[in-house]
Amino acid sequence: MQPEVYGADDFLASAMVSKSPLTLDAGAFLKEREVSASYEVERAPLGTLPKWHLGDRLSHASGRFFTVEGLSIRTDFGPVPHWCQPIIVQPEIGILGILVKRIDGVLHFLMQAKMEPGNSTLVQYATTVQATPSNYQRVHGGRSTPYLEYFMEGTRRRVLFDQLLSEHGFWYLYKRNRNMIVEVPEDEDLPVESDFTWLTLGQLRHQLMLGNRVNMNARTVLSGISYGAADSDRLPCAEQSDGFHAELLKSHRTLRSAADLSGVLTWLIDQKAKFSSDVRRTSLRDMDEWICDADSIRHRDGRYFDIIGMSIQATSREVGTWWQPSLEPRAGNVVALICQRRAGVLRFLVQAMVQPGLTDRLELAPSVQFSPGYHRGPQDFPPLTEYLDAPESWIRLKAVQSEDGGRFFRADTLHLVVELPEDHEIEAPDNYRWMTLALLNRMTHFGYHVNVEARSLAACLL
Amino acid sequence: MQPEVYGADDFLASAMVSKSPLTLDAGAFLKEREVSASYEVERAPLGTLPKWHLGDRLSHASGRFFTVEGLSIRTDFGPVPHWCQPIIVQPEIGILGILVKRIDGVLHFLMQAKMEPGNSTLVQYATTVQATPSNYQRVHGGRSTPYLEYFMEGTRRRVLFDQLLSEHGFWYLYKRNRNMIVEVPEDEDLPVESDFTWLTLGQLRHQLMLGNRVNMNARTVLSGISYGAADSDRLPCAEQSDGFHAELLKSHRTLRSAADLSGVLTWLIDQKAKFSSDVRRTSLRDMDEWICDADSIRHRDGRYFDIIGMSIQATSREVGTWWQPSLEPRAGNVVALICQRRAGVLRFLVQAMVQPGLTDRLELAPSVQFSPGYHRGPQDFPPLTEYLDAPESWIRLKAVQSEDGGRFFRADTLHLVVELPEDHEIEAPDNYRWMTLALLNRMTHFGYHVNVEARSLAACLL
Repeated sequence: MQPEVYGADDFLASAMVSKSPLTLDAGAFLKEREVSASYEVERAPLGTLPKWHLGDRLSHASGRFFTVEGLSIRTDFGPVPHWCQPIIVQPEIGILGILVKRIDGVLHFLMQAKMEPGNSTLVQYATTVQATPSNYQRVHGGRSTPYLEYFMEGTRRRVLFDQLLSEHGFWYLYKRNRNMIVEVPEDEDLPVESDFTWLTLGQLRHQLMLGNRVNMNARTVLSGISYGAADSDRLPCAEQSDGFHAELLKSHRTLRSAADLSGVLTWLIDQKAKFSSDVRRTSLRDMDEWICDADSIRHRDGRYFDIIGMSIQATSREVGTWWQPSLEPRAGNVVALICQRRAGVLRFLVQAMVQPGLTDRLELAPSVQFSPGYHRGPQDFPPLTEYLDAPESWIRLKAVQSEDGGRFFRADTLHLVVELPEDHEIEAPDNYRWMTLALLNRMTHFGYHVNVEARSLAACLL
Repeated sequence: MQPEVYGADDFLASAMVSKSPLTLDAGAFLKEREVSASYEVERAPLGTLPKWHLGDRLSHASGRFFTVEGLSIRTDFGPVPHWCQPIIVQPEIGILGILVKRIDGVLHFLMQAKMEPGNSTLVQYATTVQATPSNYQRVHGGRSTPYLEYFMEGTRRRVLFDQLLSEHGFWYLYKRNRNMIVEVPEDEDLPVESDFTWLTLGQLRHQLMLGNRVNMNARTVLSGISYGAADSDRLPCAEQSDGFHAELLKSHRTLRSAADLSGVLTWLIDQKAKFSSDVRRTSLRDMDEWICDADSIRHRDGRYFDIIGMSIQATSREVGTWWQPSLEPRAGNVVALICQRRAGVLRFLVQAMVQPGLTDRLELAPSVQFSPGYHRGPQDFPPLTEYLDAPESWIRLKAVQSEDGGRFFRADTLHLVVELPEDHEIEAPDNYRWMTLALLNRMTHFGYHVNVEARSLAACLL
């Protein structure tokens, strides 16, 4: 919903710089951090979690953090008209903020190597700040969050991106965080705390392609980056890009006409009017088919996901040991974007997808969003699932990325980008639409229009 | 959220035309329609409403229409941290659409003289189409909705405005309708059905200033009209406007810089992060302080509003008699916009206001939104209430407008616009902000950013 694109040229230039004297080896920096502290993360029965109580909902004695509640969903989207599931409720708006600064003429991103207990790869690059209101509003003891002040009212420098964006609509009820990119002036002194380092966008792109190196929160913020529109086919940096990346840049920089944009918005409202969704919170105890006991909350047939306990022991941190509930999805989540050169520009197939926890019923989702726990079997598989087995030569990205390891346990999602040959014909239902990256990015800037799964893929296409 | 302003010049030109050969007397047309059919509208005990059942919620046997449910609200916005109230739940997205067409060089609006049982003035100008999904999706018997096809997917002409906008956040849970303005080409033949007539925007403006002539649904759609930005102080039509209207036009046509807009959006997110709001649906039976019986649903101290039954007898319509529940507010609702010339342009003081039924916690609201039912007494009155008693010479608009008479019973709201002298100093809390009409209109185009009370006032400032 930003009115225009800020910092576009600087972002693009930084994306083309794959080395920086400030962080010679971005992979090694992560590794160092990982070995400098060791953690033991284990599953624990819900009943053993101190101060967490399982009743009509699962909640903490202090009333803080989050709750897990029951949800009853009725919708005419997809093959299942009615189901119940637990869902995480956390109405607070947190800040996910990245500080950027032009150093030696190149925009650098201040990234934090951060441990998240639920991730398969424990330490990954995170945003400069991940802060909840309890960090930033209330006065409380303990270490303050470094760099937080740069994202607070009245003390910000130049805001390049600032938007409330949704998170996993199957796991969270109406969850959103504030995604920000704030630029610090070149001449402002900014000490680099331990665990933090400066990376160019080119370095981040490389880490993103490797997978499991850039955490979910960082990916959603990075998806807000725009490269601006180019007037001609000639891209200033094309010579530095391989073929597919040059195509991506062109798709990012294609001019969006007002009519295109207005057409997409009207089409999206059509989809919202077409599909119904009625969502009601219920007691965990009232969910048919679900078992809630001292061990976990789980579906009787092993579907959807489990709510489990997690114990975390950090050997070298002041916090020591802590416990928390966590959501463990069924293994095998895949998100895929199908793309194709159409009318000379790479376009991506997105779908308008209803998810129970979304703020306004539906958002744009990847071409395929495949969650084994949600499908009773092949008869329930979503359209286009067959493209997950596309020939190797069509695959442009194949990387496992982790979801928020602060809430989810080993939630690894395979990210795929599949490029169809230009002469391949594909048929998709009416709630699917082809978009350039420029248009998709513009929709991200509008707020609740692009879901976190699609944004996560978009971050891998910078 | 429209990317740019469509039809701006045509709208402005139409606003300056106060007479049209197509409808010589807009007031007389309404009067004729009113006498051509007579209605008797009476209060009826809830228990006598056929097919409506009062249990944990109030619902229709068919599952259609809407339900009235209980709501429990906790918020740190305003003086009351916790309360319960009934709320209308109607998740369907209806279409509120106005057809416009250039006739003899002037844009005309096809308005319907429509009876709504709850209104004090029964027949008012309504949008060309007010349709729910049961009208436009399902095949069913009965008269089809005239002109509906012009608003449907694939058959629209030129879409000038299309946005999902919220409705009364104290009375509806997450309610929104699709607000549309669609232009029909000049050469397209469009028969005018009985009860319909063509008005210029100038004629509509006059009806709006009189009060109780243009219904709520029409007002919210009209609030989407933009006049576009003027490059200089000189307004093409200024000579035809009185002093205050010329000031309004200038405020409408002031260029909005990208920085202004982005500043407002960031400030609004600040407000969303600052205030909490936790809303839970409950059984009507679980609401302390509320009485639910065969007569009505009402607060034990007579606060908030009542849910009553309404019987409607139409003497000349095929429908004959029908019954429905209705919400009757306490009398005395006032909404006021305070404005002042600041830096040479008229600016309006709006507030970021939490309301329990809003989709995303808060939206921009009028300077004062005064609902007697919600205040326990003067100690609860909202900031700036004293300006409701501003000297007569400061008052620029004073008109009673009705809320949706299809749902609400005698919900009349006094609309006030108060212009402060330039040297008058006013202090408002941090969640208040001055905006030109141009900026406020831009926020309306973004979707869930301007509440229906503020939009209703904005429609009176065209």
